[in-house]
Amino acid sequence: MSDIGSLLSIFSERELKDLLLNFNDFAALNGILKRTPDGVIVTLQHTLLPSPYPKVQFEEAVDIQRSFNSLFLCVASDHEFLKSTFKPVLSQDEYVYNLWKIYQIDHELGPLQPLKLSLNRSDYMLHSTLPGCPLKQVEMNFIASSFGGIAERLVNVHQRRLNQLLGANAPKLSDCPSATKFGIAIARAVEEYVKSSAHLQRAGLPAVLIVVSENETNIYDQRSIEEAVLCTNASLRLFRRTFAELAESAGRVNVEEATGRLFVDGHEIALIYYRTGYAPSQFDEETWRTKLRLERSFAIKCPSIDYLLANMKLVQTALAAGPTVLSRFGVSPQTAERLAATFARQTVLSTDFHFADPVVIDKMVNECRREPDKFVLKPQREGGGNNIFGDEIVRKLDEVMGKLEANAYILMERLEPPVVENCIVGVEYPSPLRRQMVSELGIYGVLLSRGTEELENHDAGHLLRTKLLGINEGGVVTGFANLDTPLLISPPL
Amino acid sequence: MSDIGSLLSIFSERELKDLLLNFNDFAALNGILKRTPDGVIVTLQHTLLPSPYPKVQFEEAVDIQRSFNSLFLCVASDHEFLKSTFKPVLSQDEYVYNLWKIYQIDHELGPLQPLKLSLNRSDYMLHSTLPGCPLKQVEMNFIASSFGGIAERLVNVHQRRLNQLLGANAPKLSDCPSATKFGIAIARAVEEYVKSSAHLQRAGLPAVLIVVSENETNIYDQRSIEEAVLCTNASLRLFRRTFAELAESAGRVNVEEATGRLFVDGHEIALIYYRTGYAPSQFDEETWRTKLRLERSFAIKCPSIDYLLANMKLVQTALAAGPTVLSRFGVSPQTAERLAATFARQTVLSTDFHFADPVVIDKMVNECRREPDKFVLKPQREGGGNNIFGDEIVRKLDEVMGKLEANAYILMERLEPPVVENCIVGVEYPSPLRRQMVSELGIYGVLLSRGTEELENHDAGHLLRTKLLGINEGGVVTGFANLDTPLLISPPL
Repeated sequence: MSDIGSLLSIFSERELKDLLLNFNDFAALNGILKRTPDGVIVTLQHTLLPSPYPKVQFEEAVDIQRSFNSLFLCVASDHEFLKSTFKPVLSQDEYVYNLWKIYQIDHELGPLQPLKLSLNRSDYMLHSTLPGCPLKQVEMNFIASSFGGIAERLVNVHQRRLNQLLGANAPKLSDCPSATKFGIAIARAVEEYVKSSAHLQRAGLPAVLIVVSENETNIYDQRSIEEAVLCTNASLRLFRRTFAELAESAGRVNVEEATGRLFVDGHEIALIYYRTGYAPSQFDEETWRTKLRLERSFAIKCPSIDYLLANMKLVQTALAAGPTVLSRFGVSPQTAERLAATFARQTVLSTDFHFADPVVIDKMVNECRREPDKFVLKPQREGGGNNIFGDEIVRKLDEVMGKLEANAYILMERLEPPVVENCIVGVEYPSPLRRQMVSELGIYGVLLSRGTEELENHDAGHLLRTKLLGINEGGVVTGFANLDTPLLISPPL
Repeated sequence: MSDIGSLLSIFSERELKDLLLNFNDFAALNGILKRTPDGVIVTLQHTLLPSPYPKVQFEEAVDIQRSFNSLFLCVASDHEFLKSTFKPVLSQDEYVYNLWKIYQIDHELGPLQPLKLSLNRSDYMLHSTLPGCPLKQVEMNFIASSFGGIAERLVNVHQRRLNQLLGANAPKLSDCPSATKFGIAIARAVEEYVKSSAHLQRAGLPAVLIVVSENETNIYDQRSIEEAVLCTNASLRLFRRTFAELAESAGRVNVEEATGRLFVDGHEIALIYYRTGYAPSQFDEETWRTKLRLERSFAIKCPSIDYLLANMKLVQTALAAGPTVLSRFGVSPQTAERLAATFARQTVLSTDFHFADPVVIDKMVNECRREPDKFVLKPQREGGGNNIFGDEIVRKLDEVMGKLEANAYILMERLEPPVVENCIVGVEYPSPLRRQMVSELGIYGVLLSRGTEELENHDAGHLLRTKLLGINEGGVVTGFANLDTPLLISPPL
């Protein structure tokens, strides 16, 4: 059964089409949904079957998730590290500069609320050109980590499909309690807020504020997490608001001056769960003011501003620069080795960064000029979708090298995941329906902390995103990738 | 909590709007869906909260469901009764005439397959103008009995809403295992088919054929039942086909001459589950030929042709004519009394029918001419949507009385259910959002029989359909009614 291709080959194209249509309906029935930009409900495109994934690499990714959670709490708490890392890009990136300003105010005045919640996702590709096909981290996501809601549903849907096609021989998929664990963590964070707030001992339960973008398309993912919160605590109130609705001018937000307590439409907010606010296009001047106001409130933020900085790829590159950087964060040599093994080769493009080795930069840039297809040039921001490939990289290097603009980019080896075979449910592709595809693994993590103390630290399920071979762009809601789940196999692919 | 109105009155219109929007998303996430005629997925419109319903009447409706199951098996098996009942309408109704022709062939040659499956729904309104607000049966549905799939989902969704709004004080809704029980019954029917088919002992499992209409809008209801079938037996294959795809000219259906075994695309079919074929508009000559071919096969039919005749309102009117008719079907006097208590006053319009009392006809027709608003004139067919109200009845009576056309109609007292208050999720209604509404109760039933022997006889869950006060038309998928669930209350409404 590890061989999905041979299972699929049992079916004629006509039978496959029938199967895709049937399974499309069942997926919609089970909440595998998104909205189009026009607001129409459609099935979220996903793979017909789980894709095979090597067990050893999967388990390693799950095992190190707690260490990554801890590491990034230390990173986000390390003012000196963040300062020296981001200094060279502040003039190059208005978005990072604006984050930095809020961070600095918060740092100088001292944050009001020591509790922080991180609901994150660490993304990996397998690199098939290296021996053993090792796991390489593509990025960490600390804000709006998507599909934690729907991944849990898709594992169940995929399991039923396997049962249907293979009966008693169907393999068991790994449990994926991502929505449940995110829901429990949000409810727990509210509980901690109540415990730490003397004034609330006798008042009603404070609420959760979910900051969403207008015309959200990935809404059912968010709703799945909300539903999981309500399964943990049915009495919790959840308010979804856009930045515009939270603007001072809208008059719906109130921050109590003496305590910093945040009120939205009269309800005290214990936790702000951001599902937007990670890309420059989501901000204008008013939004930045709103962001600052929320950040300076007593509410728990998920994620807080320091995590948004730690979320930049620049931090990942700094951490990948060598074992000395990791040791700074109290990581044991053994763990440091495991984490470092998942870092892809990558470098910043200038020596303005305190961690950058000019020899490494030169070597990688030269390699890249010779074989640009083996590299990808990424903006150092979170968000995705703006990566540069192939000859475009060389043109961009010519343009920026030696200038300040070079500081805004990271050069990374291009990962080559092994090819699997699958079909796509939820969008019409021309025949043949069976296609060659590659997968990216995501491992969810939960960290609830008070200052530097960890109250909860878990891995929290997983997902694959699988796309047709040869497509550079990612993104499930944008339609480039397809939601998927791993079918663990013992021998390597 | 029986007072939904006062619960709703806690919320301002703005809060209600927010609630409706939130609950709309959660409903979609949980499969409360339909398709528009254009194929777009939308939330199936339903009530915000369960509507209050008196416990005594509800339990009576559930209790007598098994007796109705049994009664209609007897009716469908009673050739003489069907013959004398339908004789007067055969010249008046081409649809019934066509059913009758197939029935007669089947009756004369003897049906090949003694197993029959009935997945039905008995519909009731409370009649508030009578003392005690008794339960009155509106109709029995034997074909395409809808919402058995989604009702089970809506009970869970409504329960979560109650929990969320009322916390620990939330009342518990009655269990509604309608999809599950339909699914189990279908799987059991296939099992019985296999047991009774010596040739299958060593072959693969035969499949289920679901006959569907093109561009079905209530597809997620059907899919919910399919999913329940697969939860009972993951190895069962389910094929959805339209009448057009099953036509002889399409070449996909084969009936083995010696045995009558039915094959679709090469797969042996154990059970035909009809979700279409109950309205004249769904048939042309070719469709009638296909229907005959399927009916004359060895596959179990759900429902079989005799049930389609028993499904006509004319049969209901015959049964309501007096205790002698019921006693013909071996119903005990005690049960006869309980069943008869649920029959609304109704009559055919001519003495052509063996059961019609001319005194009763005269009396009701005269009453109706004086107060037409207290009556409804119904075509004697299943299907709904063609009822005549108010002054239109008098005009129609003037047109048909004394003529053969009168035989096509049934005059029934108009039921006046008590008024409840609720809101509607899934469609935009102008303010005020809280509206006065009336409900119709449906009780699902399952009867698996071999000849006149009952192998399974159950009630199988329930639903309400609730519509704005003053709307004559019914129908959830057409948008007139809203899916709902009953919140049982002990004192009368």
